[in-house]
Amino acid sequence: MAHIELNNDLPGIGGLLAYRPDTARPLGELAEVLLRGPSDLSRGERELIATHVSELNSCNFCASSHAAFAAAQLPADHVRSAKLNALLDIAAAVAESGRAVTPELVAKAKEEGASDLEVHDTVLIAAAFCMLNRYVDGLGTWAPEDPAVYATMAQHFVKGGYAGMV
Amino acid sequence: MAHIELNNDLPGIGGLLAYRPDTARPLGELAEVLLRGPSDLSRGERELIATHVSELNSCNFCASSHAAFAAAQLPADHVRSAKLNALLDIAAAVAESGRAVTPELVAKAKEEGASDLEVHDTVLIAAAFCMLNRYVDGLGTWAPEDPAVYATMAQHFVKGGYAGMV
Repeated sequence: MAHIELNNDLPGIGGLLAYRPDTARPLGELAEVLLRGPSDLSRGERELIATHVSELNSCNFCASSHAAFAAAQLPADHVRSAKLNALLDIAAAVAESGRAVTPELVAKAKEEGASDLEVHDTVLIAAAFCMLNRYVDGLGTWAPEDPAVYATMAQHFVKGGYAGMV
Repeated sequence: MAHIELNNDLPGIGGLLAYRPDTARPLGELAEVLLRGPSDLSRGERELIATHVSELNSCNFCASSHAAFAAAQLPADHVRSAKLNALLDIAAAVAESGRAVTPELVAKAKEEGASDLEVHDTVLIAAAFCMLNRYVDGLGTWAPEDPAVYATMAQHFVKGGYAGMV
């Protein structure tokens, strides 16, 4: 049970977004730009960054959701590029602390072909999930156990995006 | 020097917001609603929550900025209420992990008079600064050393708010 009365029974962040539309709006817009806006990283690759950080933060709802969103948008034979792996290393550092992102980690990503904008967006995606994971778990929301629920959510968000979540 | 070429010399989050207006917009709107929108917590009290989390995350720019914004909006003889102290304890837990927010911490805040919305907003303010602190330090931005810079920024933001930062 959530730590506060949400007046709805939606799981994870869904219940929080419905509870507080004024904060839901900018949160949805931020997710839309970062995870689905124009980028050299595919939508599926960006969902892998979101999933990685959510796993590091032990946020079951976010990790299950974004793993499903990644799977729904990546080819079955997807292999992580060296660039994506270097960006995932930056994301893991962000999950620990902003100060854990070293010039060496950034240099490695650039060597593998990452642009400044990709480094920027990776840091902000990782930081945003440090927020979202804490929001979801800090208010004690519930997470469905059935994987089919996340697969169904994936179909919805892959089609409709994040901006209109509420 | 920042980890990426920002094409501006603005300090802290300012340089990042100018670099990427598409993400700056929802970040500004989120800060405006959380720190300045309607609430039973005063604007100064909410800035104290932002400052506390930024200090715990060792983000010099954010801690110095929001300490100045708190000072500019609180009476000189401000004493922290028991409710605010209980909410600051929740914020500190969020800085550690969403899972560190216990029913006991929430019950204590409610005993001291906190509403569900105040608990919600405290968790989301704390979570948002876990994002913003990581964004600012994860991209290696610089922080002015002169306290007068933060006092000047405070006058600007107290008057104009966060939504139009860029």
